[in-house]
Amino acid sequence: MDMSAARERLVVIGGDATGMSAASQARRLKGPDELEIVAFERGHFTSFSACGIPYWVGGDVDDRDDLIARTPEEHRARDIDLRLRTEVTEIDVAGGRVRARDVDSGAESWTSYDKLVIATGAGPIRPDMPGSDADGVHGVQTLDDGQALIDSLTRTRGRHAVVVGAGYIGVEMAEALIKRGYEVTVVNRGSEPMSTLDPDMGRLVREAMEGMGITMVDDAEVTKVHTGGDGRVRAVATQDAEYPADVVVLGIGVRPQTELARAAGLPLGSHGGLLTDLAMRVRGHENIWAGGDCVEVLDLVSGQERHIALGTHANKHGQVIGTNVGGGYATFPGVVGTAVSKVCDLEIARTGLREKDARRAGLQFEAVTIESTSRAGYYPNPSPMTVKMLAERRTGRLLGVQIVGREGAGKRVDIAAVALTAGMTVEQMTALDLGYAPPFSPVWDPVLVAARKATAAVRKGSS
Amino acid sequence: MDMSAARERLVVIGGDATGMSAASQARRLKGPDELEIVAFERGHFTSFSACGIPYWVGGDVDDRDDLIARTPEEHRARDIDLRLRTEVTEIDVAGGRVRARDVDSGAESWTSYDKLVIATGAGPIRPDMPGSDADGVHGVQTLDDGQALIDSLTRTRGRHAVVVGAGYIGVEMAEALIKRGYEVTVVNRGSEPMSTLDPDMGRLVREAMEGMGITMVDDAEVTKVHTGGDGRVRAVATQDAEYPADVVVLGIGVRPQTELARAAGLPLGSHGGLLTDLAMRVRGHENIWAGGDCVEVLDLVSGQERHIALGTHANKHGQVIGTNVGGGYATFPGVVGTAVSKVCDLEIARTGLREKDARRAGLQFEAVTIESTSRAGYYPNPSPMTVKMLAERRTGRLLGVQIVGREGAGKRVDIAAVALTAGMTVEQMTALDLGYAPPFSPVWDPVLVAARKATAAVRKGSS
Repeated sequence: MDMSAARERLVVIGGDATGMSAASQARRLKGPDELEIVAFERGHFTSFSACGIPYWVGGDVDDRDDLIARTPEEHRARDIDLRLRTEVTEIDVAGGRVRARDVDSGAESWTSYDKLVIATGAGPIRPDMPGSDADGVHGVQTLDDGQALIDSLTRTRGRHAVVVGAGYIGVEMAEALIKRGYEVTVVNRGSEPMSTLDPDMGRLVREAMEGMGITMVDDAEVTKVHTGGDGRVRAVATQDAEYPADVVVLGIGVRPQTELARAAGLPLGSHGGLLTDLAMRVRGHENIWAGGDCVEVLDLVSGQERHIALGTHANKHGQVIGTNVGGGYATFPGVVGTAVSKVCDLEIARTGLREKDARRAGLQFEAVTIESTSRAGYYPNPSPMTVKMLAERRTGRLLGVQIVGREGAGKRVDIAAVALTAGMTVEQMTALDLGYAPPFSPVWDPVLVAARKATAAVRKGSS
Repeated sequence: MDMSAARERLVVIGGDATGMSAASQARRLKGPDELEIVAFERGHFTSFSACGIPYWVGGDVDDRDDLIARTPEEHRARDIDLRLRTEVTEIDVAGGRVRARDVDSGAESWTSYDKLVIATGAGPIRPDMPGSDADGVHGVQTLDDGQALIDSLTRTRGRHAVVVGAGYIGVEMAEALIKRGYEVTVVNRGSEPMSTLDPDMGRLVREAMEGMGITMVDDAEVTKVHTGGDGRVRAVATQDAEYPADVVVLGIGVRPQTELARAAGLPLGSHGGLLTDLAMRVRGHENIWAGGDCVEVLDLVSGQERHIALGTHANKHGQVIGTNVGGGYATFPGVVGTAVSKVCDLEIARTGLREKDARRAGLQFEAVTIESTSRAGYYPNPSPMTVKMLAERRTGRLLGVQIVGREGAGKRVDIAAVALTAGMTVEQMTALDLGYAPPFSPVWDPVLVAARKATAAVRKGSS
């Protein structure tokens, strides 16, 4: 029997979390005799934690290499033919092949595949304005970005930093720059930071950030980056004012990098991400998978697709794809939209739908907000916490939870994440058997207090 | 219309969490014109947090009154006829009345009821041995107990403390006594402390406690308390050895205080607790409710009754009972057996079934254990954590989780508590959308890592 005839080739585009998790998992299930694996990565690194970049910049993480979960050498030692600094420039779906270009030499060649994984990630949204690519203006999506920012901070030793955008990346970078001794201004398009929260909860974040000495500029759009004679950033202008800036960090979000997929005629959703089935196969394509920051995911609460760039989903996608490519069976059922972050000692968390998400999905709801503490009130350092909860009108189904507080607040959102996944009502939640002891929780956990209030609101508004 | 004719009387036996929560909630729903409420409490206090006593003894809580959620005066201001230092000595079910005795004067009288709530709590198990009621031997169930212990510690200024029992109360009291400068010996009947965990997880607790300088004596039964000429404890003897003791704390658990209920012919379960229906009515009795530490609760995982003395259940029971007594509708569906505790900075948590619980319930299972960290490995202070997970053979249904670790470990058990309530399989859990950011979790939360390993074990053992 000729084994080579049965040998298939898997091509992976993108060497970060999804791509290399998929490759590794496929390799675990199928040896090199059965499956050849070729992975193309245009950068210098593999399997790194982009989520860790703010902590590297802020000095909590000493070494860039700490952010690398698995090096190119480790992947190669597992019989994965990893080609760094090699960018895929075209997918020929009909021909079952990809064209790749050596970034340094410019040489191009075609590689055929039996199975293809697209894990091209997301890229930062760059504001369309004069000076947005000036020296000292930095994205923070890749390790190269992070290194460039750190080099820039070290070289210029400036005083003023402007962060554009007040989402997760924005607030985390604000903290990182504060830690490096900068005076930080955050320029935010919305009325409150953290637009992933409702504005009433975002206001708590703004108040806390201002308390940390961060200047918050709301309802402002950056219109221009002013540069000096050396081509380096000097200030940032909005429609109303100008802010001195020795360095500018772009944290206005990311979009799926799906130009290749679009050119190949693969299906994209309304957020620009690839559309897949539950096994993470690109819709309509038996032998092409996609995952991570370049795909849209099903929101299990609203029933609609969303784009969420988050390492934890990317890793799960890689695991599911690798299992299926390797001949096993796994699915990714969707997300409930959980996210957690912190800025200094303020913890910020959400899961499920905000008020505007619920309205957009056609859902009517009751919203309640409660104040509680992370521990029993009489125990030392009971840190305050605000919990907002949305429940569907009449059915009482949990729709979403937002939490802003200090130590012990953030991960409490997991309770709601599991309850959302299970489709629980807020009244069912009031009976949840959560861990209680004075150092860990009041006798009614803050999530239960919110569930009780939401239950009362649903009952009262039950007509 | 004569309102007094329609006025009903609710009698509550026991003025702690369940009894007074029930009274308060009933009062919220029905005013004094409709419902008269009489509550009997044999002690001096109402609505106190027994769970807080170790922290009061240890000095984390300054003042006894901090542990009182609501004072007698506050209850009386809400038209609850609260009678302190008044012990109910008999329930006459057929006659619809209770006999109560003034503890100080000894005077007795009968009070009739239309509705009765039994919330008599639990009492400490006292080892049956010579000297167990000597001076310096203390339980820690009530505020009076706590005050007596603190007075004893203050008066004697001893060096040696022996804690009998190594469950939640035992380990919390060991920490409290360490904080007061005592040399602490914990005498434990089992092979490892925390028998609410499997022994392999209990061993981690023992190692940590020994690391804190606590002397752990396993497989030992206290046989005698030696006293000096003043009648005060001097030492504790086991079958093998003797340990000097200036103070002894009994932490060998509690049993339901149901002598009244038993004498009245009310139904008790195999653990000695009252049996109720889902609305917390005593089985077979339309107008008698019971809750808190004196009842047995349904374990939703094993389908069997258990006795669990825990403030969080007691408060929920009170809320449910008060709602039903007040003419509303609420149920307590049962528990999954969640508990969390700490000894110094070691966090200990469990939910669902241990191995022996599962066997006893006739369940076959796979058990896996993993090591992970509370945060991303590269983030400062990623504290280690061990997670053990049990999944049902073939179905893969989650049966239980145990966690031992440092900061951030304990409350992670809530994820499993909700998943158990929802009847999730460990494979479903691998897709849970839990909060991820480097300061809060590795990219795969420790609970997800355990779920993945358990999933693999179920698949492998699927025959």
